[in-house]
Amino acid sequence: MKTTRIPGGYNGKILRVNLSDNSTATEAIDEPFCRKYLGGAGFVSYFLWKELQQGIDPLSPANKLIFALGPLTGLQLPGSGRNCIGAKSPLTGGIAKSEVGEFWGAELNRAGYDSIIIEGKADKPVYLWIQDGEVDIRDASHLWGENTKETQEAIRAELNDKRIRVALIGPAGESLVRYACVMNGLYDAAGRGGLGAVMGSKNLKAIAVRGHKAPPVAKPEQVKELRRWLLDNIQRMASFQEYGTGAAMEGLETTGNLPVRNFRDGLFPAVKRIDAQTIKDTIRIRMDACFACPVRCKKVVQAKEPYPVDSAYGGPEYETLAALGSNCGIDDLVAIAKGSELCNAYSLDTISTGAVIAFAMECFENGLLSIEDTGGIEVRFGNEKAMLKLIELIARREGIGDLLAEGTAKAARIIGKGAKEFAMQVKGLEPGMHEPRVKYALGLGFMVNPHGADHCCNLHDTMYATEQQMKEFHPLGILEPPLLNDIGPRKVALFRLAQFKKIVYDSLVLCQFLPYSYQQLADVTSAVTGWDTGIMEQLRVAERILTMTRLFNIREGFTAADDALPQRFFQPKTDGILADKPLDATEFERAKSYYYTLMGWDARTGIPMPEKVEELGII
Amino acid sequence: MKTTRIPGGYNGKILRVNLSDNSTATEAIDEPFCRKYLGGAGFVSYFLWKELQQGIDPLSPANKLIFALGPLTGLQLPGSGRNCIGAKSPLTGGIAKSEVGEFWGAELNRAGYDSIIIEGKADKPVYLWIQDGEVDIRDASHLWGENTKETQEAIRAELNDKRIRVALIGPAGESLVRYACVMNGLYDAAGRGGLGAVMGSKNLKAIAVRGHKAPPVAKPEQVKELRRWLLDNIQRMASFQEYGTGAAMEGLETTGNLPVRNFRDGLFPAVKRIDAQTIKDTIRIRMDACFACPVRCKKVVQAKEPYPVDSAYGGPEYETLAALGSNCGIDDLVAIAKGSELCNAYSLDTISTGAVIAFAMECFENGLLSIEDTGGIEVRFGNEKAMLKLIELIARREGIGDLLAEGTAKAARIIGKGAKEFAMQVKGLEPGMHEPRVKYALGLGFMVNPHGADHCCNLHDTMYATEQQMKEFHPLGILEPPLLNDIGPRKVALFRLAQFKKIVYDSLVLCQFLPYSYQQLADVTSAVTGWDTGIMEQLRVAERILTMTRLFNIREGFTAADDALPQRFFQPKTDGILADKPLDATEFERAKSYYYTLMGWDARTGIPMPEKVEELGII
Repeated sequence: MKTTRIPGGYNGKILRVNLSDNSTATEAIDEPFCRKYLGGAGFVSYFLWKELQQGIDPLSPANKLIFALGPLTGLQLPGSGRNCIGAKSPLTGGIAKSEVGEFWGAELNRAGYDSIIIEGKADKPVYLWIQDGEVDIRDASHLWGENTKETQEAIRAELNDKRIRVALIGPAGESLVRYACVMNGLYDAAGRGGLGAVMGSKNLKAIAVRGHKAPPVAKPEQVKELRRWLLDNIQRMASFQEYGTGAAMEGLETTGNLPVRNFRDGLFPAVKRIDAQTIKDTIRIRMDACFACPVRCKKVVQAKEPYPVDSAYGGPEYETLAALGSNCGIDDLVAIAKGSELCNAYSLDTISTGAVIAFAMECFENGLLSIEDTGGIEVRFGNEKAMLKLIELIARREGIGDLLAEGTAKAARIIGKGAKEFAMQVKGLEPGMHEPRVKYALGLGFMVNPHGADHCCNLHDTMYATEQQMKEFHPLGILEPPLLNDIGPRKVALFRLAQFKKIVYDSLVLCQFLPYSYQQLADVTSAVTGWDTGIMEQLRVAERILTMTRLFNIREGFTAADDALPQRFFQPKTDGILADKPLDATEFERAKSYYYTLMGWDARTGIPMPEKVEELGII
Repeated sequence: MKTTRIPGGYNGKILRVNLSDNSTATEAIDEPFCRKYLGGAGFVSYFLWKELQQGIDPLSPANKLIFALGPLTGLQLPGSGRNCIGAKSPLTGGIAKSEVGEFWGAELNRAGYDSIIIEGKADKPVYLWIQDGEVDIRDASHLWGENTKETQEAIRAELNDKRIRVALIGPAGESLVRYACVMNGLYDAAGRGGLGAVMGSKNLKAIAVRGHKAPPVAKPEQVKELRRWLLDNIQRMASFQEYGTGAAMEGLETTGNLPVRNFRDGLFPAVKRIDAQTIKDTIRIRMDACFACPVRCKKVVQAKEPYPVDSAYGGPEYETLAALGSNCGIDDLVAIAKGSELCNAYSLDTISTGAVIAFAMECFENGLLSIEDTGGIEVRFGNEKAMLKLIELIARREGIGDLLAEGTAKAARIIGKGAKEFAMQVKGLEPGMHEPRVKYALGLGFMVNPHGADHCCNLHDTMYATEQQMKEFHPLGILEPPLLNDIGPRKVALFRLAQFKKIVYDSLVLCQFLPYSYQQLADVTSAVTGWDTGIMEQLRVAERILTMTRLFNIREGFTAADDALPQRFFQPKTDGILADKPLDATEFERAKSYYYTLMGWDARTGIPMPEKVEELGII
């Protein structure tokens, strides 16, 4: 491994930008580093762990914002157009990282970099312009306050290239809303954890990228093979192709999986009015795709009444439909689509936004927020006008919006008086729109995930062991299908494998909807980089990254007590199939402890054993 | 997995023989069972764990003697002629299992069985005759007391078939010497743990086998491919082909690896006189092979003076050369060859025999055994006549031999007076002829191996990370070569992988000298059985077997305190390169604890966590 050879798929270069002194520098990364951390989520965790001072304010210049690609980024391979973004989270105080699609990642790859590290804070609004290895820090004062659409258009116009790809923030990022996101273009969000607020805190409006030269690949023919395999098996993605996400919401409601009114209720008979099938039949005008992807799973919607919805902002996916819809008790599809548009325009995470509004609604209905507090808005479940108004207020931190811009955890502390009971969050992050009372492994994921109750934890769930999935598990030594409604040792072990697989996806930075097997992920990594790698090495990389991420959070003061679900999940729903099925807190504590053990973390404290840290070569 | 299909490579049948009531029965094994435990060491551990009563006397009828094959047994593939044997050990009181070559395993495979379980005790000496699924329990009174050669000849003569393969015991097994072995033919021993004594305790002299029909294989062409690969890479085995084991003993002495005078000393200048190169130049008449193996690594020697050595008993391999040679301070090659012949004729494990004699020599030289105790024999290091005489006495439990037949641990307890200091053993098993003060991972293997300080623990060692080995480690995620003189967390993790690989070999029952990679083992298993398996599944099977084996020992009263090296390894050698290099007991205790942790066993007690037992599906 003692070589400075750059493995296939990597540029071998990191761009470091210090906005405080306007400096930029290119740094080399070598093969051992690439092999140890892969890219994406691995690079993000590494740089944050190595470079961040303990205890810094996430919204101060001391925070760093990392953009990272993986070795597959920019390949002609479905799912490879993505990038990862990370920083210390202003929402959780721990690590934040989020992946995002569109074309920006592939473009940065062609522009010559594997990662960007943003440091410091510009003294006035700026944007970065990166073109084929050249970097320019440009004034963005004229763009400050603009929505994402206007910003992207202005940048493309002034740089005179419509093909420029832009990662950017809207007013919510500028206002330091703690769950502001970074947008790639106008409808792909690196949503979770407040990365847009970090970007805003640095006075960085956008990163515009254009590139023309991708790094070479070790065995291009084998990459093509995997692409062909996906095209031959694209029927596995048929529902995504036809509807995107959110086609099966009626089934979710029946099985208790659909969050309804702040995860309180089970029944939502109007669900059919807000699902992806209805969207297709009503407001959808087309589907769109990320870089190199034939699946085309992204909805684009348009409406005029009762709310004008601009198709430039795409359309709502499942998480948004549930977060702004059923979880707020709202069944007006156009209102939800409008909410989605506003979030994309302002750079707000739709999941946290919807969850915060649902929280506010429950507080209001229980007298914890008064009509004076809300500035006269009837913040009640089902009130779509209130939902839309709150999005506006949050994005600009006006009125009640200033409180809600803090996120559920902080807002609940400020409100006091039992508001905590309604604050659905883990580590400060509002949960994805999935139900632990049905999906037990998801519940464990919500608990222990270092970023909080990430919607991607849904991918950890393994309750639906299809024949196809079991075929994939067999070579891993999992011969029996997982049990339903179980979080015993077998499920915990399986969860850990699923969690590791997700980290591999996030480090290669590959779209998780694409049904690659563990073996295919290893094979394509091998094909691109030239390494003789395998499943075990990839899982070991994942173990390393996850443990390093845990160490970051522990350095910031997190303890095992932060790996806890909101109390509501240990209570039954008010109605529906889960009306008598709360989770058992003891079982989940036991599962957590066994998970720690399997990770080589102390079974009680969750602190990685020094031996495990040494074994994994974390330094 | 709910099928009664018999996977490729298995007969799907177990033969159960109860010698107390002269009954035999055939039992079916199904695909889930085969996939969960593979065969060989896996089957042995399973049957002993499931069927043995806690606390039984290993030499009573309540013990069971298991012979087990694996899915590769009998294939036209180098290393596949072997079988595993197991029982509760009369030497350790824990589990004993040992693998053995020759042709017997392949023959049993063709005779229609995957395993034999021997129960009870015959009321007079018997042997088993198994021919193409037919089983006969035959009188062996006329064979009792005979050496192995006479026994095998007589059985072949009375069954009138020279091609019959015989597993059998000589007088040492009949005398219940606690380290008597089971011989396959005349020079392949299932040596360790006293399995021959268990066989003797059942009045079972031999199992004669003849068969003509091997079970089908899923993908024969792929098996041929692995065979071709080995033939194409047979230069990796060049030293084995030319010398068998023991070619490099001079180098072992130089590096401190050679046990000299009961592991006490370092220097043995006469080493060149007893190594495999000298054997080739002097007493060797040819090389011999096991079933289907082109390597032909087995020495056959012959001599007339000063001791007549019968070539029918093969010749000494490395373990024997060191055990009866340097470790007894003996440099007379023909005497060592004679000792080897006697051990094979009497069915004595050469390693334990040599170690017990070395122990007696040190006791004698230190006044713990008197000339009266030894019946007039000067039991001193370097006295080859004493060595040969003691073998005779031990085999028949005559004079001092009756004490020494108990093994070093028990003999030391009986002698008392500080003899324990000279008793080189772990859990009662005398160590293989390898030096933990050089090979740290071997040392950990000696400590934690459930069977005691097995010579096969040498395969756990990873200090010699050749480029070839590192290539194999890379896809497992081990990128850095292991450190010398280190037993830190990385080495422990690597050790565990090596230990698992050995268990895979022992469960497939494949010869460990053949340089198959983890991936090749998985691939050939897949080719034979038709399973879509992989490295991870195989390692998981190994983890399951090892944990089950540990549970067996714990049921028998073993604790973490039994996972301990003899004190001598924490002292320097008297001379040579290790004169100032004892092991650090604290480091090894720490390594042991971390190993427990990685295994999912309690870090302090070494008891498998109930969660791990459940996760692995051990019932």
